[in-house]
Amino acid sequence: MTDPIRVLVWNENRHERQNPEVAAIYPDGIHGAIAGALRSAGLDVRTGTLDERAQGLADLDWADVVVWWGHLAHDEVSDENVDRIQARVLEGMGFIALHSAHYSRPFKRLMGTSCRLKWREADDRERLWVVAPDHPIAAGLAEYFEIEREEMYGEFFDIPTPDTLVFISWFSGGEVFRSGAAYARGRGRIFYFRPGHETYPTYHNADVQRVIANAARWAAPGTTPQPTFGNRAALEDR
Amino acid sequence: MTDPIRVLVWNENRHERQNPEVAAIYPDGIHGAIAGALRSAGLDVRTGTLDERAQGLADLDWADVVVWWGHLAHDEVSDENVDRIQARVLEGMGFIALHSAHYSRPFKRLMGTSCRLKWREADDRERLWVVAPDHPIAAGLAEYFEIEREEMYGEFFDIPTPDTLVFISWFSGGEVFRSGAAYARGRGRIFYFRPGHETYPTYHNADVQRVIANAARWAAPGTTPQPTFGNRAALEDR
Amino acid sequence: MTDPIRVLVWNENRHERQNPEVAAIYPDGIHGAIAGALRSAGLDVRTGTLDERAQGLADLDWADVVVWWGHLAHDEVSDENVDRIQARVLEGMGFIALHSAHYSRPFKRLMGTSCRLKWREADDRERLWVVAPDHPIAAGLAEYFEIEREEMYGEFFDIPTPDTLVFISWFSGGEVFRSGAAYARGRGRIFYFRPGHETYPTYHNADVQRVIANAARWAAPGTTPQPTFGNRAALEDR
Amino acid sequence: MTDPIRVLVWNENRHERQNPEVAAIYPDGIHGAIAGALRSAGLDVRTGTLDERAQGLADLDWADVVVWWGHLAHDEVSDENVDRIQARVLEGMGFIALHSAHYSRPFKRLMGTSCRLKWREADDRERLWVVAPDHPIAAGLAEYFEIEREEMYGEFFDIPTPDTLVFISWFSGGEVFRSGAAYARGRGRIFYFRPGHETYPTYHNADVQRVIANAARWAAPGTTPQPTFGNRAALEDR
Repeated sequence: MTDPIRVLVWNENRHERQNPEVAAIYPDGIHGAIAGALRSAGLDVRTGTLDERAQGLADLDWADVVVWWGHLAHDEVSDENVDRIQARVLEGMGFIALHSAHYSRPFKRLMGTSCRLKWREADDRERLWVVAPDHPIAAGLAEYFEIEREEMYGEFFDIPTPDTLVFISWFSGGEVFRSGAAYARGRGRIFYFRPGHETYPTYHNADVQRVIANAARWAAPGTTPQPTFGNRAALEDR
Repeated sequence: MTDPIRVLVWNENRHERQNPEVAAIYPDGIHGAIAGALRSAGLDVRTGTLDERAQGLADLDWADVVVWWGHLAHDEVSDENVDRIQARVLEGMGFIALHSAHYSRPFKRLMGTSCRLKWREADDRERLWVVAPDHPIAAGLAEYFEIEREEMYGEFFDIPTPDTLVFISWFSGGEVFRSGAAYARGRGRIFYFRPGHETYPTYHNADVQRVIANAARWAAPGTTPQPTFGNRAALEDR
Repeated sequence: MTDPIRVLVWNENRHERQNPEVAAIYPDGIHGAIAGALRSAGLDVRTGTLDERAQGLADLDWADVVVWWGHLAHDEVSDENVDRIQARVLEGMGFIALHSAHYSRPFKRLMGTSCRLKWREADDRERLWVVAPDHPIAAGLAEYFEIEREEMYGEFFDIPTPDTLVFISWFSGGEVFRSGAAYARGRGRIFYFRPGHETYPTYHNADVQRVIANAARWAAPGTTPQPTFGNRAALEDR
Repeated sequence: MTDPIRVLVWNENRHERQNPEVAAIYPDGIHGAIAGALRSAGLDVRTGTLDERAQGLADLDWADVVVWWGHLAHDEVSDENVDRIQARVLEGMGFIALHSAHYSRPFKRLMGTSCRLKWREADDRERLWVVAPDHPIAAGLAEYFEIEREEMYGEFFDIPTPDTLVFISWFSGGEVFRSGAAYARGRGRIFYFRPGHETYPTYHNADVQRVIANAARWAAPGTTPQPTFGNRAALEDR
């Protein structure tokens, strides 16, 4: 695509308003930090948050790709919005679920599984290893990158087997996790990326920002065929 | 497992009661034909139909594997029953979706996609080719088997990429279809098997019966670890 | 990449010199037809043929992607050249195997399987269906495309399960085939594309040309991490 | 299968004869320890070692499954034996590669990649997490198991993406590794299982023994169709 990719960064934006510790790390919200990084990477970015008009999804039809962060208020996202997001992904829109969005309604809908996992908030060190060195989401990285302090997420992570597993995380407390999971669904693409607990400055990390920008480019729709469905005449005489 | 596998054959059972042509082919219902075949294969079989008590799912907790056929009344299956089936699969129960059950609520829930496809009712010949010759669902078959007359289902079939693609169908009208699609989800296993339009005697076909019996054995839960989730203490001093 | 992708189109180039029927279809060789199409698509193209210096691989280190066509003389390709191609692919070079190159030495080396199949030269009609509508190799296509007359290739095709299956072929004689198979190996990418028997004008077909150009772009190396191997000190105190 | 599965445990058997430390851990050789465990699990077991007649492969045609351990002398295994093993696997024989057999000739032949990795001999603790809880190779395990001291193997591990990834290892020095990798190739099945450095008593570990027995059962050939290849008449009039 010659035009910049259009990314809607959606954020629940509750922790930032309720917890001064989080607000100090993300004065413009988690969405603001991510949007800034994606703009610096040359993408065309808008933001939306849960308590805005249309639950922050007024620009859904504009977006090539949606980046999603949520935690406290998953259940407040409406059935209608979950339906719209699923339909848009199957038509070709990219969807990038970050951290606690593993348990968001749109991600669970698209996966079909419980998306549950093990967790611990205890300042673990996380080291993300690249296990798909051909994959564009790993462009520009080294063989691994580290996050000094993060929440731990551990296996078993109840997701479908990724079409491509891009990262595996090591945690200092003894666990591993499939931290970068890429999927095709319908004509669309989905990426789950693990890091980003709200009490750590993870979205200011340059490697994390690079992965999200890479994922947005990878997930943007191209000019592949739009599937059609329904009753069809035969193509051959029989 | 030393005990026989417990299979609940679930059928919507509406065509059989509304259409004399279908009733003539399946005097005991589609569920009766399948149940008979599975009993002959040594499995422990019960049946359930939509208009029975508990929507025919009173024996859901008893079952190792559920076989599902539906078409006219997908929307009548309750939210609660869809939730229960999904939860049971993720805990280890097998689920085998037949033919028009591609569009059933439990299957769509487990896939996360629209599960739409192209179709035609025009007496196509179908030839199913084995493309995973190591897979137990293909045990005892030849390299392909034929169904003289069937409804056509054509690509694009909007499902997640199968963990294993077991069969590809050729249709005389010019289409192909991913006809045998195997998935792991949570601790459970799912198989989609295409043949079985209600106006054809497909479930009396010995190869079709063999595939369903093979799939039930393959999908039965074993003694693998039951995943657990939630907050966890560290396993290592850091 | 801002510079054009560098593609080496390699051809055995024996049929063209031995069979006037083939020479009439491909007066510049199969490599000439493919090279012309790729140049029109904006790629930087060189060609090499088996009976040239260095078996036509003098430009191997220059290439981002190699396209390979062979049939009569697979065994004449030297061990050293097979080793070099495998090593280059694992380091990041793309490799696109066309038609009878399923049985070429580099492709068999990279797959690890026999790569055998069923075949028939009988003017079958082939219809290639897109089954991965998000995949860049399908960019710009319709939901299927047809080749009026081609050699048939049928399943079972003894290849590893593709990382992504992009096309499935329907043949008028009754067979199906996994016609577009995409793989990651090491840091590199491999695509097998079925059409192209030498006695048909297949490489003059616009859809076939488009697929090969798409595949070359998809297979070109990016800026992902170059894996390293060997003895390593610990990253953590234990 | 009603008869016990026939397993040929093949071992290079050089460390055991050269290094008293290894001989003390494995007085009957690594093959002896593994064979004893598999016999206790009810399998029909023979052993072969590199310096025996026919390079220890006299019973290759007898075997349903081969378990392979090698390290010092990979290059001494003959071309003919590598060819025979590959052919037998594609016809349906199981092949289980243990630890340093990642770099054995049969495994590299079957994978088509370099099979290189990072390593360290420094008494790391290894914890293997189950990430495919439906898979029969994980039968009877807990959610993870530990090996107190082992050699470290780290990513990137240059193998094809596993058809199923069963285990991911955590190492105390900071690395992760895809430790249980399952593949279908032709009609056969392959499993790579990481643990087992010769200077540690790993093959006396009950969990490790259980995994190898599970893998042997999983890899044994069934009654799936034997693929055939070559020229074929059309199945349909065109």
